[in-house]
Amino acid sequence: MDVMNIESKPEKMEVSTGPLPASRKVYVSGTEFPDIKVPMREIDLHPSANEKPVRVYDTSGPYTDPQAKIDMYKGLERKRTAWIKARGDVEEYEGREIKAEDNGNASGKYLAEEFPVKHRPLRAKAGQNVTQMEYARRGIITPEMEFIAIRENMSRAELGEDYKRDEYAEDFGANIPDEITPEFVRQEVAEGRAIIPANINHPEAEPMIIGRNFLVKINANIGNSAVASSVGEEVEKMVWATRWGADNVMDLSTGRNIHNTREWIIRNSAVPIGTVPIYQALEKVNGVAEDLTWEVFRDTLIEQAEQGVDYFTIHAGVLLRYVPMTAKRVTGIVSRGGSIMAKWCLFHHKESFLYTHFEEICEIMKAYDVSFSLGDGLRPGSIADANDEAQFGELETLGELTKIAWKHNVQVMIEGPGHVSMNKIKINMDKQLKECHEAPFYTLGPLTTDIAPGYDHITSGIGAAMIGWFGCAMLCYVTPKEHLGLPDREDVKVGVITYKIAAHAADLAKGHPGAQLRDDALSRARFDFRWEDQFNLALDPEKAREFHDQTMPKEAHKVA
Amino acid sequence: MDVMNIESKPEKMEVSTGPLPASRKVYVSGTEFPDIKVPMREIDLHPSANEKPVRVYDTSGPYTDPQAKIDMYKGLERKRTAWIKARGDVEEYEGREIKAEDNGNASGKYLAEEFPVKHRPLRAKAGQNVTQMEYARRGIITPEMEFIAIRENMSRAELGEDYKRDEYAEDFGANIPDEITPEFVRQEVAEGRAIIPANINHPEAEPMIIGRNFLVKINANIGNSAVASSVGEEVEKMVWATRWGADNVMDLSTGRNIHNTREWIIRNSAVPIGTVPIYQALEKVNGVAEDLTWEVFRDTLIEQAEQGVDYFTIHAGVLLRYVPMTAKRVTGIVSRGGSIMAKWCLFHHKESFLYTHFEEICEIMKAYDVSFSLGDGLRPGSIADANDEAQFGELETLGELTKIAWKHNVQVMIEGPGHVSMNKIKINMDKQLKECHEAPFYTLGPLTTDIAPGYDHITSGIGAAMIGWFGCAMLCYVTPKEHLGLPDREDVKVGVITYKIAAHAADLAKGHPGAQLRDDALSRARFDFRWEDQFNLALDPEKAREFHDQTMPKEAHKVA
Repeated sequence: MDVMNIESKPEKMEVSTGPLPASRKVYVSGTEFPDIKVPMREIDLHPSANEKPVRVYDTSGPYTDPQAKIDMYKGLERKRTAWIKARGDVEEYEGREIKAEDNGNASGKYLAEEFPVKHRPLRAKAGQNVTQMEYARRGIITPEMEFIAIRENMSRAELGEDYKRDEYAEDFGANIPDEITPEFVRQEVAEGRAIIPANINHPEAEPMIIGRNFLVKINANIGNSAVASSVGEEVEKMVWATRWGADNVMDLSTGRNIHNTREWIIRNSAVPIGTVPIYQALEKVNGVAEDLTWEVFRDTLIEQAEQGVDYFTIHAGVLLRYVPMTAKRVTGIVSRGGSIMAKWCLFHHKESFLYTHFEEICEIMKAYDVSFSLGDGLRPGSIADANDEAQFGELETLGELTKIAWKHNVQVMIEGPGHVSMNKIKINMDKQLKECHEAPFYTLGPLTTDIAPGYDHITSGIGAAMIGWFGCAMLCYVTPKEHLGLPDREDVKVGVITYKIAAHAADLAKGHPGAQLRDDALSRARFDFRWEDQFNLALDPEKAREFHDQTMPKEAHKVA
Repeated sequence: MDVMNIESKPEKMEVSTGPLPASRKVYVSGTEFPDIKVPMREIDLHPSANEKPVRVYDTSGPYTDPQAKIDMYKGLERKRTAWIKARGDVEEYEGREIKAEDNGNASGKYLAEEFPVKHRPLRAKAGQNVTQMEYARRGIITPEMEFIAIRENMSRAELGEDYKRDEYAEDFGANIPDEITPEFVRQEVAEGRAIIPANINHPEAEPMIIGRNFLVKINANIGNSAVASSVGEEVEKMVWATRWGADNVMDLSTGRNIHNTREWIIRNSAVPIGTVPIYQALEKVNGVAEDLTWEVFRDTLIEQAEQGVDYFTIHAGVLLRYVPMTAKRVTGIVSRGGSIMAKWCLFHHKESFLYTHFEEICEIMKAYDVSFSLGDGLRPGSIADANDEAQFGELETLGELTKIAWKHNVQVMIEGPGHVSMNKIKINMDKQLKECHEAPFYTLGPLTTDIAPGYDHITSGIGAAMIGWFGCAMLCYVTPKEHLGLPDREDVKVGVITYKIAAHAADLAKGHPGAQLRDDALSRARFDFRWEDQFNLALDPEKAREFHDQTMPKEAHKVA
C-alpha cells in the first residue's frame, strides 16, 4: 500500500455555499409531522414572463441556504435525532473504540485530523428492529415517510400546477400515482419496492427514497485513494456533487485515513452516504484478500454503522461456482469488491463469509437501519461480457439474499451493470425485477460501448437514461475520467449533470407527473428569448451563461 | 443583415493533417472496378498483444495520409470525374455566371477570396438522368456502389475476422447482411431505402451510403454567420469534423460570402456536403421572406448544384394548412427554413413554391444527382411539442413528396426531430418508415429533455443512439453550444465524438456484423493494462491520454 500524501489538518475545509442563480430555498412543513421542513428550490423568472417561480427538487442541503449557519467543524444540524428518539426503540451506548487500523495505522502528520465533535452512537434496543421497513410493515408512517412524500410531490397540488400526464408515457409496469401520499411511501417500503437509506446515526441527512415508483435518483462516487486528495477535498466533492443534484454519495476511499475521512463526510452530509465496507476491511489485513475474515468484516460493519453509513455495498452473491464462469470473459472480474471476494473464495475454496454470515449481517443492519446495496461483483466490464452466465447467476443469488434480508425487515437494493449494449439493457431490467422481487435496481451506467474512454459519462448516460426509463431506481454516475483516473471537481460536476439529464429524461418518458413543468418553463423562456430565465432554469446555469457569453456577450441581448 | 467581419483573404488556410496515433491509412482496391481505392485506418497494437492491427472506418480523407499532397488552393484530387465521364451521360458547360448577390454583394475587403481554380460544371445531357438511383433501377452497379460495399465491410472477410453476430441483437426489421455486396448496395438504392449523396460536380468526395441496412452515419453542421468566423476557419472545421468521424458535413452559412465560402469547402471536402438553399435565397432578397420567389430559389439550386452540393434540405412539406397547427405550441416553429416558408405561405396565402414546383426541383436534382433531404420545417422545438399534428402532418406530406421524387429516380432522405422524450422516439421512427416508404431517416438528436442547455450534445446523444438503434440512418450532431451560440473547434469535436458514440452504440444494438470488434480489442487492451493501445483504439485518443496523464503521468505505467 502506498502512503497517503495528506497532512493531518484538513485546513482547506472550504466548501461551496450560496444559492444558485435566481434561486431561493423554501421549506414545506408536514401535516402529520408539523415540525418537518422539506427543502425545495424556487427559481424566480423575469417579471415579463408573468409566471410563478419554478420549484425544483433540491439535494443541496443547507449549503445553498443563506440563512443557514455552516460550521464544518461541528457538522450539520442533527434534525432527525428527535424523530428517532421519539420512537423509543434506540439506546445510546459507548460504541466501538476507534483503533489505529481504522485509519490504516496512519500517525503523526499522516493521520488526518479527527472530526472535533464526538457523538455517542445509537443502536436498537435489544430485540428491537429500527428499519424503515420494520415500521412500514407494522403500518407505521414515520416522519421520514411524510418528508419524502412532500419532497416527491414538489407541492404541485398546493401550487395548483397545471400538469398533465403524457398520454404516450410508458412506464413498463411501474405504478406512479398523481400524488405521493405518506401512506403510499409506507406501502412501497413495506413491499420492498423502495428503500429509505437512513441510518439512525446519520441524523443530519434529509430523507429521500429510492424506488421505481418515485423520481429516478442519482449517486455520485467520491473518495480519496492512495495517490491523491485530502479530507477537505473529499468533503467539498460531496458538497459540490449535492449542489448539482446528487441524491446519494458513495465514499469509496481506500488507503489510510478511511475512518476519519468518512466521519468528516457523514457529519457534513445532507444526503445518504454509502460505502463498500470490504475496501476498509482489506486495508485492515494489509491488502491481502486471502487474510480477510468474518471477524474483521463484522468489526468494520459495526464501525461504519456507528458512524452513520446509510447503505453498504456487500458482494454476497459472488459464489464459488460462479467464479470459473468468468475465466472465458474478455475482461474477467472488474468489480473491486467482486475480485477481492473471488480471490478469497478460490484461495479458501469455500463460500465467502459474506454469504455464509448473511443473516448475522442482517442483524447488524437492522440495529442501525443500514440498507443493503447488494453488490454485483461479477458485473460485465465490457460489451463482450454483458448478460453472461456469471452475471445472471449472481443476480439470481442476489434475489435469494433479498428474501432473506426481507425476512429480517432489512431494506435492500440491488446493484447492476456496468457495460451493456442497448439491446441487452431491458433484458437486465426485466430479469432484475423478476429475480429480485421488485427490489430497487441501482446501476452503474450502463456503458453502451467500450470505444470512448474520456467520454464514458456519455456512453453510460445513454444506458442510464434507458434503464431509468425501464425501471431502474437509482443511477450511479460515471465521470469523464472513468477507466483513466480520479475525477476532479469539474469531472464530478459533469458526471452529476449528465446523470441528472439521464434521470430526468427517464422521469419524462415514464410520465412522472410534473416532470415536464421545468422543461416547459425553460422552453417558454427560450421561445421568448428570456435568456436569463433560460440560464437560471438550466441544470447548470453557469455553463449555459458561459457558453452564451462566448458568442454574444452583450447584456442587453439577454432579457430582450 | 449585419456585415461579416471577415477579411478578403483566407490567409489562415491551415488545416489539421497527419495520421491519428498509431494509425496508418490503407487502401483497398475494387474487383469490378480495380482502380477504386477505398480508404481505411489501421490501428497498430503493442507487440505484447500479439494481435492484428484493428481496421476502422475512415472519413478523414487524404488529410490523414502522409503520402497525400494537400494544397487547399487547388482542392482535393477529383477522382470520381473519370467514373462519371465514363458513363457517357454528362456534358461540361459554361455554367451559371456568378453574381455579386451570390456573395451577398460583399465587395472590397469584405469579399472573401474566390477559390483559385475554376472547373466547368457537368450536367446530365438532355434527356439523361445521372442519379445513382437511376443507375440502380436500371440494374447498373456503379463504381460508387462497389466503393461503398468495400467500405462498409471493412475487409472483415479478407482479414478472416472472427466476428459473431449478437444473438440478442434487435434490428427492428432492418436487413443487414453478413457481407455487403455491390449488388446489395444497388438494390437498396433502387428501392429507395438508401441514398448515395454524390453530386457529379463534387468528384472530390469519397462515396458513402446512408440507409438503415448500413452503418449508422453522422452529420456535422458548420457554417459562418453574420457575426463570426472566416472562410479558413470553416474549411478547417470541415476537415476537423471529418478527422474525428463526420460522415457528412452541412454548410449552414448565412450572411455574406456564402458562395465563395462554399466553394472552398466543397473543393477541399472528401465527404458529401449538404446545404439549405433557402438560406442563400433569403440573402438574395435581403432577408425578406415574403419576397422570395420560385425564380430566385431555382437560380440558387442551380448555383449550388453546379458547385457540387450533394444534398439539399428542402422544406417542401410546410403546407399552408399545417401552419395554424403550430399556434398553440410552446415553441412554435423553430426550424429556420420552416419559419421562412411559413411566413411566405401566410403572407401570400398560398402553398409554397417548394411544394408547387416540386417536380421542377426534381428535374434539377436529377441533372446533377443532388439528393433530397426533405426538411422537417415543423419539427418540435421542445418536449411539449413533440409528435403533434403539425409535425406528423408534415411528415405525411414528406411521404407523398418522396414518391414524386422516386418517380423521377431522385434520391431522398427525410429529416426528423428535434426535441422528443424517450417514450416518443420509436413512434417517430415507425411512423417515418411507414409514411415515407422506408426512405432513410436523418434526425437532429433528438433531445430527450429541454432542461440542460450547455449539455445538449448529451441530451440529444441519448435520443440519437436510440433512434439510430430503431432504424435512423444518419444522426445530425448537436454540439454543447446548441441554443446558446456558435460551436468552436472544441465544440465540433465534442459533438462529433458524442455522435460517433451514439452511432456505434446503435450499430452494436442492431447487431451490425463486426461492430463489436473494436470494443473487444479495446476491452482486451484495458484488461491487459495496455494503456497505449487503449488510447489508440479510443474514438478520441488525445483526450483519453490527457485524462490518464492528469492522474498517472508516468510513461512506464502505460504499457505495463
